[in-house]
Amino acid sequence: MPKIISSFKITGYGSYLPDKIQTSFELSELIGKSENWINKYTGVFERRISKIDVDKMGAIAAKEAIGDKPSPDLIINASGVPKQTLPDTSVFIQKELGYKNIPSFSIHSTCLSFIVALNVAASFLESNMYKKILIVSSDRGTRGRNYNEPESAALLGDAAAAIYIEKSAEESGLISYNMSTYPEGSSLTEVRGGGTNLHPQDSNTKLEDNLFSMNGPLVYKMARKKVYNMIKDDLENNELSINDIDLLIPHQASKMAIKAYSKYGGFSEKKIIDIISTTGNCVAASLPLAFVTAFKENRFKKNEIIYFVGTGAGLSIASAIIRI
Amino acid sequence: MPKIISSFKITGYGSYLPDKIQTSFELSELIGKSENWINKYTGVFERRISKIDVDKMGAIAAKEAIGDKPSPDLIINASGVPKQTLPDTSVFIQKELGYKNIPSFSIHSTCLSFIVALNVAASFLESNMYKKILIVSSDRGTRGRNYNEPESAALLGDAAAAIYIEKSAEESGLISYNMSTYPEGSSLTEVRGGGTNLHPQDSNTKLEDNLFSMNGPLVYKMARKKVYNMIKDDLENNELSINDIDLLIPHQASKMAIKAYSKYGGFSEKKIIDIISTTGNCVAASLPLAFVTAFKENRFKKNEIIYFVGTGAGLSIASAIIRI
Repeated sequence: MPKIISSFKITGYGSYLPDKIQTSFELSELIGKSENWINKYTGVFERRISKIDVDKMGAIAAKEAIGDKPSPDLIINASGVPKQTLPDTSVFIQKELGYKNIPSFSIHSTCLSFIVALNVAASFLESNMYKKILIVSSDRGTRGRNYNEPESAALLGDAAAAIYIEKSAEESGLISYNMSTYPEGSSLTEVRGGGTNLHPQDSNTKLEDNLFSMNGPLVYKMARKKVYNMIKDDLENNELSINDIDLLIPHQASKMAIKAYSKYGGFSEKKIIDIISTTGNCVAASLPLAFVTAFKENRFKKNEIIYFVGTGAGLSIASAIIRI
Repeated sequence: MPKIISSFKITGYGSYLPDKIQTSFELSELIGKSENWINKYTGVFERRISKIDVDKMGAIAAKEAIGDKPSPDLIINASGVPKQTLPDTSVFIQKELGYKNIPSFSIHSTCLSFIVALNVAASFLESNMYKKILIVSSDRGTRGRNYNEPESAALLGDAAAAIYIEKSAEESGLISYNMSTYPEGSSLTEVRGGGTNLHPQDSNTKLEDNLFSMNGPLVYKMARKKVYNMIKDDLENNELSINDIDLLIPHQASKMAIKAYSKYGGFSEKKIIDIISTTGNCVAASLPLAFVTAFKENRFKKNEIIYFVGTGAGLSIASAIIRI
């Protein structure tokens, strides 16, 4: 039985999916591609469009995760794109939740923000810095779609998800965490504007600099082998076989990326959470949304081993094995 | 002797101050205030203006901190404003350093990003997740100055600072960490644009939404009592007297804010690092820059107790007591 390196239990799960659905048919005229092209090429048949901003979305998910539990000791916003440059989004999520005095900050690692925050929370609980932590991921990727880049524009959707995580005396928690960042891939997935480089006030900052841009095929090509090797290392280092993994929860990067876990990774499709056809790629919210969806659908039970794996702009890859 | 809750030692210090100095005289015509007004009202006589972007600035400071030590296990970017919306700035700092494969991500809590990152690093080292961590804060606040808001425009300056922090078997490390976030102050210090709320592509996003805005007097009023109480609690909870603190390193928010630590806080001016008159408020880089400056000026020695205190947009307040 693999050793728990940081004990925790997840005691609350919440998610928010906006009501408004945009089908591929509706999107097709905006991006100049047919409904069939969108469905076939991206695997996203419909995506949600939020009318409320990321803080309100995150707070809805967070409220569900908190339920009737006490207020957390710490709020971590783990999203891809902020509400505004500063203060960081955790402040606005806390405001929406009606709390005050709770320390809060943001972790940013694009689509991997949740998995990084989970690792930070695990260490905080292990070192006794905090005892109960709220992690919220909320992204509104449809705000930054570039209709001239049909593939990425068709991929993105809006969602939020949250978990409430506490110290545990039981044999549950983090078994393994693994992350690598390869700056050679820094231009493959970008929003180039919004910061000090191509500042919004600069005349040479173009509209598309402020929109999401991704070279999907190159990301897939660069990531596939790296993720494959990471999975191999994770299993070996923790003396686990592929059958010991009860559930694989991948970042919902693209249909092809999710399929690769069964096609090349050797995981049974039944063990892989795949929600991309109805939600799209929800940036940092995708992975926790898949996790919360699995919880709500009773896809895992106590003591099982869950494997989170994902890729993010950077290019970064990361994984976490937990015993639930 | 206060107990160490997370052991670490800081083995590398680095900083970067751009060559170009902008005096208050030079700034005066840009913001329509006299040199005397600027110097008297903000206490900032000169500030640095960077021609290179935050990643390059941060990498210069980081190289000095790393020296001939091995590459870190983790790179944390702990800055206020990013290079671009995504990927996060840690990727670009790593790229400038010529590394690859090193996990990296960003922590954002505006001016408190460094102190939050220090706490995250302390827990990572305590839980054995990582053994050697690079923390880099790099901010180019002068890129977002609003000349129609003379006080904040005169306050801001550019800088970067970095530390290399490792596991330690000695009696050094974190004694105490304290943070509170009060969302009621969320509109007191802002860059409202750059995210999903007032998106750069929206026609109703105004130029000033993308610039730094601060209500200095209200921040000071709100923060002073809260910081005063935090200091009182920190000393009491750790059974320390004010004389046990060998050095106080505050965020360089404003001259008045730094003065308050002696005027109201009761700390001797000799024990307070005050660099604001020549560097201005360098957002998240201010606190580590003051720390690295103190190191370079031999202002502290082994086993002494250092007290970091600061305020940030949010409004958040935070403190950390360490034995060096």
